[in-house]
Amino acid sequence: MSYARQMLDAYPGTISIDAPVLAATIEALTDCAQACTADTDDDLSESNVSEMVTCIRLCLDCTDLCTSTVAIASRQREELDITVFTPLLESCAAICNSCAQECERHAHMHEHCRVCAEACRRGEQATRELLAAMR
Amino acid sequence: MSYARQMLDAYPGTISIDAPVLAATIEALTDCAQACTADTDDDLSESNVSEMVTCIRLCLDCTDLCTSTVAIASRQREELDITVFTPLLESCAAICNSCAQECERHAHMHEHCRVCAEACRRGEQATRELLAAMR
Amino acid sequence: MSYARQMLDAYPGTISIDAPVLAATIEALTDCAQACTADTDDDLSESNVSEMVTCIRLCLDCTDLCTSTVAIASRQREELDITVFTPLLESCAAICNSCAQECERHAHMHEHCRVCAEACRRGEQATRELLAAMR
Amino acid sequence: MSYARQMLDAYPGTISIDAPVLAATIEALTDCAQACTADTDDDLSESNVSEMVTCIRLCLDCTDLCTSTVAIASRQREELDITVFTPLLESCAAICNSCAQECERHAHMHEHCRVCAEACRRGEQATRELLAAMR
Repeated sequence: MSYARQMLDAYPGTISIDAPVLAATIEALTDCAQACTADTDDDLSESNVSEMVTCIRLCLDCTDLCTSTVAIASRQREELDITVFTPLLESCAAICNSCAQECERHAHMHEHCRVCAEACRRGEQATRELLAAMR
Repeated sequence: MSYARQMLDAYPGTISIDAPVLAATIEALTDCAQACTADTDDDLSESNVSEMVTCIRLCLDCTDLCTSTVAIASRQREELDITVFTPLLESCAAICNSCAQECERHAHMHEHCRVCAEACRRGEQATRELLAAMR
Repeated sequence: MSYARQMLDAYPGTISIDAPVLAATIEALTDCAQACTADTDDDLSESNVSEMVTCIRLCLDCTDLCTSTVAIASRQREELDITVFTPLLESCAAICNSCAQECERHAHMHEHCRVCAEACRRGEQATRELLAAMR
Repeated sequence: MSYARQMLDAYPGTISIDAPVLAATIEALTDCAQACTADTDDDLSESNVSEMVTCIRLCLDCTDLCTSTVAIASRQREELDITVFTPLLESCAAICNSCAQECERHAHMHEHCRVCAEACRRGEQATRELLAAMR
């Protein structure tokens, strides 16, 4: 079992969101942040780096947004603040989607972009499922 | 002149957002993130720490959100992605407001909460001005 | 296979460090950062929060240091900068150890501290193995 | 007065490090992190981006390390943990120096690299002064 899930199960209070959905989002966005950090560096090592500039920028944004969303999701357990958390998840799903789209464009040439696109799509889907579970 | 402003002025491309407004937001949110990190630690040093738990949680969320907003704002210069950036700024303004409200409740007892509330209010206002400038 | 490992395998250049050891460190520190973020919030929900203050501070430090070490480790592939990376790993192993020690003190009372201590010990061990592999 | 200094002055406990030196480090590294984030994006906008790859990588490392050092420095007030904090500051001073050196190479061509180099040198110097004050 992942640490995200174990920690949620050990939470001393009552969790206001569906715990497996929340844990799945935390895991998927953690993976996505790490994949995007690695993909940024992979892109910088490609000989056609000038064609990877948009991909690098989106990966950097995606890392930053997934990292802060994971941290904030880890604290939205008892008192869910939807004025903060809902737009943050919407923003996070949007960057996962934008980053996935750009990585998919390069996936046939660069295996690292194919893997990163997959991590972004999983991050996007998990985030949308969490948004749906909060409605 | 702040580094945020100097770096915007040295940008080699065209900036799609009003540069002084963008720089002011970057500066205010940088200050806010730092004040919230410090206030978290100040709260942990208070003898009535059990009454500061909500304040600590909000300060942690505010630090994380302001830090990622600063990073992403520093990359939204030429190609503004409003599906990502607008909800992120809304989320950031909301946490600055929530954190300011809670810090204001403790401001008469704890000088560090008074200072932190001020930093959060400035962060909120700058973020709302950037949102207005993007419309 | 983890994304950390897949991304290392897809790296377009030559990796200067032992790839499985590097991937294991990235994974263990990613888990550790997430466990510490969750444990901070769990501690804040405990009725004896005033006794958890040291644990909270160490978990916050451990999250910040593991997160930045993961990011920097993801970029230390071709040109290893030991003046930066060696002391960073030493600092990271030290905070993982300090945080584990404190969490172990609370492990018999709080399951979340037991799980977090385990994540910190794995983070510490992986970091020390990476340091050994770099010698 | 900066928020870093105001928050240190409002600290409810006893500060174990020289407060003005600590505040100066927090401020200089906060500036440095922001300058490096901006310089990364500036480099990506240059037509000779393939020549800026080393600069981009160092700026990314410098941002991550300065950000976590600021956070951890904000919590090292009463109980200084030198096994963690000393190597972290050494690592941070080293990346500020490496990043400054690389930015200085591009300073005659790119004003943003000149400004970033200045921010890195100030970050390095402040960090070394804090290390000296801790001895």
